[in-house]
Amino acid sequence: MQSKDVKNTVEVCFSPHSFPLYANEDSIVVVIDVLRATSSICSALHYGVERILPVASVLEARNYQAKGFICAAERHAQKVEGFDLGNSPSEYHNPKLKGKVIVFTTTNGTQAIRVAREAYRIVIGSFVNLTVLCNWLSHQHKNIILLCSGWKDLFNIEDTLCAGAIAQKLEQTNLFEAHHDSTFAAKSLYELAHKDLIQFMENSSHFKRLEKFNLAEDVKYCLTPDLAPVVPILEGNYLIASKNK
Amino acid sequence: MQSKDVKNTVEVCFSPHSFPLYANEDSIVVVIDVLRATSSICSALHYGVERILPVASVLEARNYQAKGFICAAERHAQKVEGFDLGNSPSEYHNPKLKGKVIVFTTTNGTQAIRVAREAYRIVIGSFVNLTVLCNWLSHQHKNIILLCSGWKDLFNIEDTLCAGAIAQKLEQTNLFEAHHDSTFAAKSLYELAHKDLIQFMENSSHFKRLEKFNLAEDVKYCLTPDLAPVVPILEGNYLIASKNK
Repeated sequence: MQSKDVKNTVEVCFSPHSFPLYANEDSIVVVIDVLRATSSICSALHYGVERILPVASVLEARNYQAKGFICAAERHAQKVEGFDLGNSPSEYHNPKLKGKVIVFTTTNGTQAIRVAREAYRIVIGSFVNLTVLCNWLSHQHKNIILLCSGWKDLFNIEDTLCAGAIAQKLEQTNLFEAHHDSTFAAKSLYELAHKDLIQFMENSSHFKRLEKFNLAEDVKYCLTPDLAPVVPILEGNYLIASKNK
Repeated sequence: MQSKDVKNTVEVCFSPHSFPLYANEDSIVVVIDVLRATSSICSALHYGVERILPVASVLEARNYQAKGFICAAERHAQKVEGFDLGNSPSEYHNPKLKGKVIVFTTTNGTQAIRVAREAYRIVIGSFVNLTVLCNWLSHQHKNIILLCSGWKDLFNIEDTLCAGAIAQKLEQTNLFEAHHDSTFAAKSLYELAHKDLIQFMENSSHFKRLEKFNLAEDVKYCLTPDLAPVVPILEGNYLIASKNK
């Protein structure tokens, strides 16, 4: 337990590529991939999926599929042919998935989980679990790294905005402080964008990429706070819903 | 010469660590280290220094010093003991330096120049040469990478704001377009901060670091546009003032 005077840190890392510069084995890492992996993971666990096995490659997912697992695979914003599920949160609001185990691979989100595997603990963050996640984090008495999944190792705006929202909420508890300019920038961008996230996002590259695939409904869901109030935590190889909110 | 319909790109890279993700041998790289290396380089060439030899290590600078060169070395925001000059732009406004060659090494700025050495061309950017630099860039008909030096490979806010200012000015010419979210973020942050850069910067980590050393005057100089209207370009191993503005 920390003393009352010593705050924990909360810092934003803009992409898996930069993670070694922030990594610390004693920190909790929050993996963020707003559009759409971490929003889908929250949605799945909130609606009753029992466990999710994140895997980094499509090949690994195919091997699990051959063994009879329900498998989700997305690459380049589209469902990979031959898989049961893609990366749309709406697919996971399905009574048939209740109590099931799902194997899951996406372009960026599952890579970020792999990069952070040495962390003290890995949890999943998105706008859809914002409040419950921040409450949970504020009870852990640990330093926090907010790891944006980015787009193919590059900075992306939606993960940064979500990280900014989390950092702002955590600092407001007075239990956390931020030192890095990346955290300052993420909070500033969130401050600038929060009144209308979708409008702000319309100028971003990933937004345009998703627009091509008619994913406006997904985007709206993924940018709405607290629609899937669950804290997915990595236990062994599986993501499960934390019992403590 | 490009056709009228095809715009060149301008993109912001947040730190030398991320440069391999943006690198392109056919691009012009603008190295930015607002506090204070690239501001000092502009200041030196503007006030009559003939050439600057950027070197990556203090040891290299010491070797040149032993051979009789005037040498500048900064580490951790302070002049390295035993050197002629540090990293304050005010030191370079000195008639005795007119026509001289200076060897120069700093914590972040000269490392960024080294990282970009395979580029089509390297030039130096800062607020103090903002307008003349953008005019020069808009006549080159090349893609531009704005390479922020950061702080020890991490994102920093002042270089990002400067990159945002350059990107915004270049896009306003209608000759350039930006695709990456990093460029969108840098422009958004500049838009948020530009009315009072110093006030905005007061919350940043590097600002606090410099404040400890009583460098308020330097910071004010470095954040003021167009005080040293010169375009430093790398020719061979030396930075010289471009003859074409």
